[in-house]
Amino acid sequence: MESKLRGSHFITEQDWTIEELETLFALAADLKAARAEGRPTPLLPAKTLYMIFFDASTRTRNSFETGMTQLGGHAIYLSPDRMQISHGENARDTAKVLSRYGEGIAIRHCAFGEGNAYLRAVAADAEVPVINMQCDVYHPCQILADYLTIREKFGNTRGLKLGVAWTSAPNYVRPVSVPQSLILMMPRFGLNVTLAYPPEFRLMPEIEAQAKANAKAAGVRFEITHRFEDAFEDADVVIPKSWGPLVTTRNTAEGLRLIEKYPTWRCDRERMALGKKHLIYMHPLPADRGREVTDEVIDGPQSVVYDEAENRLHVQKALMALTM
Amino acid sequence: MESKLRGSHFITEQDWTIEELETLFALAADLKAARAEGRPTPLLPAKTLYMIFFDASTRTRNSFETGMTQLGGHAIYLSPDRMQISHGENARDTAKVLSRYGEGIAIRHCAFGEGNAYLRAVAADAEVPVINMQCDVYHPCQILADYLTIREKFGNTRGLKLGVAWTSAPNYVRPVSVPQSLILMMPRFGLNVTLAYPPEFRLMPEIEAQAKANAKAAGVRFEITHRFEDAFEDADVVIPKSWGPLVTTRNTAEGLRLIEKYPTWRCDRERMALGKKHLIYMHPLPADRGREVTDEVIDGPQSVVYDEAENRLHVQKALMALTM
Amino acid sequence: MESKLRGSHFITEQDWTIEELETLFALAADLKAARAEGRPTPLLPAKTLYMIFFDASTRTRNSFETGMTQLGGHAIYLSPDRMQISHGENARDTAKVLSRYGEGIAIRHCAFGEGNAYLRAVAADAEVPVINMQCDVYHPCQILADYLTIREKFGNTRGLKLGVAWTSAPNYVRPVSVPQSLILMMPRFGLNVTLAYPPEFRLMPEIEAQAKANAKAAGVRFEITHRFEDAFEDADVVIPKSWGPLVTTRNTAEGLRLIEKYPTWRCDRERMALGKKHLIYMHPLPADRGREVTDEVIDGPQSVVYDEAENRLHVQKALMALTM
Repeated sequence: MESKLRGSHFITEQDWTIEELETLFALAADLKAARAEGRPTPLLPAKTLYMIFFDASTRTRNSFETGMTQLGGHAIYLSPDRMQISHGENARDTAKVLSRYGEGIAIRHCAFGEGNAYLRAVAADAEVPVINMQCDVYHPCQILADYLTIREKFGNTRGLKLGVAWTSAPNYVRPVSVPQSLILMMPRFGLNVTLAYPPEFRLMPEIEAQAKANAKAAGVRFEITHRFEDAFEDADVVIPKSWGPLVTTRNTAEGLRLIEKYPTWRCDRERMALGKKHLIYMHPLPADRGREVTDEVIDGPQSVVYDEAENRLHVQKALMALTM
Repeated sequence: MESKLRGSHFITEQDWTIEELETLFALAADLKAARAEGRPTPLLPAKTLYMIFFDASTRTRNSFETGMTQLGGHAIYLSPDRMQISHGENARDTAKVLSRYGEGIAIRHCAFGEGNAYLRAVAADAEVPVINMQCDVYHPCQILADYLTIREKFGNTRGLKLGVAWTSAPNYVRPVSVPQSLILMMPRFGLNVTLAYPPEFRLMPEIEAQAKANAKAAGVRFEITHRFEDAFEDADVVIPKSWGPLVTTRNTAEGLRLIEKYPTWRCDRERMALGKKHLIYMHPLPADRGREVTDEVIDGPQSVVYDEAENRLHVQKALMALTM
Repeated sequence: MESKLRGSHFITEQDWTIEELETLFALAADLKAARAEGRPTPLLPAKTLYMIFFDASTRTRNSFETGMTQLGGHAIYLSPDRMQISHGENARDTAKVLSRYGEGIAIRHCAFGEGNAYLRAVAADAEVPVINMQCDVYHPCQILADYLTIREKFGNTRGLKLGVAWTSAPNYVRPVSVPQSLILMMPRFGLNVTLAYPPEFRLMPEIEAQAKANAKAAGVRFEITHRFEDAFEDADVVIPKSWGPLVTTRNTAEGLRLIEKYPTWRCDRERMALGKKHLIYMHPLPADRGREVTDEVIDGPQSVVYDEAENRLHVQKALMALTM
């Protein structure tokens, strides 16, 4: 399994089988244990990962770069405005050249309708693995971390109820990639998923259809609702998170206006009380405190957001060690 | 001593005892010797330091990043405008998340009235050491380097006279952190300190009070004067350096105007001649040549500015090796 | 030879003897083989290279930084706007201070009339090697890679015909450093060089004179022509590449206008057919596809642009390992 993954791209978790993902989770758990023990893990000695960021980042950049250091290699932070991409270099040249120098290319590109296409263009010409650090369609590394966290908390994940709920958060239109990757992958691991959003905030139709197909194949429930509380009732896990009405409108002002139409879509103690006793709260961060979630919840005992953030490191190290 | 320092923050040298600082200087001297000998010093293998810079830097960034490489680890240069801090991430989330990935957080944040508060907020939630790379109140790493330099030049530092003098330098309002950390720490190591500035350029009252208390406890002199030459007369060491009238006015235009009111506060050969024969000239750099100091002095035989800059590397490596 | 090179600057390949350059190419070939074999090459353990970029870069930054990682060290990417250079720090202070921390300083500074002078100013005060990552006059690392590529393709390079041709490319005025370094170095290795450009695009007169002298000393031909096809006829290697009319005018608008005066100076299949059967196409990248060269040529079987880009890595690693 491991050798088969060497050289593989990771643009969406949908392209990887359950067995392949289980290999990754097993290695992630071992790397996490190694770090706790202080055991060195020089799996990628003197190897280089290129990280191209079209968008700002804290967790993603630092977890990848730190991960490469812990694996014995080095990650280079690249910003398109400082590269020849700003002089019109195409994806093919970037892919071909970086493939000659280092061992992997990771890209964040969230512009709706552009990001995934750019990743696929680079992947088509790259001779090294291309890793998706979040695009307009998918955020697979986040979802790997989310799943590892859920498994750590519950052991067996089959039959759990996961609520994925839209929340209202101002100032900018957030990508839809997190909820999309969540509804795609979680059913494959046996979780029943309830997705709640106001009508204008639907996800890409082909992704919702794929999520339904994944759930059916796995024998679990996947339902879409327009009532916030449905995501919380009797849930084991909730991930309330804002995203933009990108499928409805590409107009930013209109998008921001629609977000303000539903100010009560906020995770608070009352909503948390609707779930099972052991309900956990997750969020990929950064959360808009006060708007998406009350401090009481995100800083409270049900919140596992820092464990979730930490797991980014471990799953990504496993991903790099397997593919690069 | 060493094990007690592991995990300690370094926000101000005032929080560290003389014994702890001596441990640091001893290790710094050993690391300096190791570098001269070509002896490897992998004290922080595969470890990561996050460097968050709210302000520009040459010496600080390069000495920390190079230091981590020489210790076997890696330092990541972070700029808030490229991080989710620009999307409103709070200090708590930054602290908690980076603590999960790496082994130390270093911050430069010089905005008057904000920087130190931000460092303390991060330190409150960080599970790894927080290192001050200069804030609005302190610049402890600079002063460690300054002290190591003085000790190297003079051996015993007890009874030496250090003159800390304000100088006039245009274009921007420089922080008060260098003179403040100087007057706080130097008396504790037995130096008599004369601080000279025009009235509008006084330092934070609580810092001046603490400096007086430190001098009293150490049995040395600490005096404040408004005559430039007082800092030079009979001195062993002078550190003439510009800072802004931040305690007097927060208005930048007014601040720049006050700086221009005292153009003769410049270090030149005549002033240097007032000191002892072996008087040395120090400056943390960058100096405004021609305004703060004449080329003749800064490039002359009494200047030890490059030794001083080099010592940033050695003291910071010791600091990281002891705390991280 | 190797020990003599330790500490040497590399501002122009003109300063290095053929024997020194051959030492470099031999090490480059060995490092290339080592990488293919997976053999570690920790020649610069824990050493630091500072890369100061006044201009954008993809290949240069990534090949140097990756190279340092592969040699066991680390390269720091520095941008003057984030350094104290933006606060007026002079070349001397930058040189002196970085020399105290790390083992090499690499600089890209292409501003016409400024770049080379800055490099020489830093070199004058640096106590570590200064490496030219492209200035207004020279791009020696590119030409090292070009020559290694030609040698790999042809074995013996003596008597080959190299055509260096100007091409028309819009939007910005490109430096003259690539053609200048090409005409300087290639004759020394026995290549006959034909340089073709429209009259307004002549190179710096002293560089053309030096190229003639180099050719004469080596007993090969060097000719300048104003007919595009002359560079291709009977050639073994062509390097068609745009540059600005910097010697003719420093006015950008006028420069861009002159570039548009010669739209037919584009490398296409017809021109390639003028060369020898085994003619190869080279370009330092990024190429303006459609304007400088047709996709058919740059993506076709005669193009060796990615091999050429890859060789940047190998020659620069050899350069760093020999000098640092």
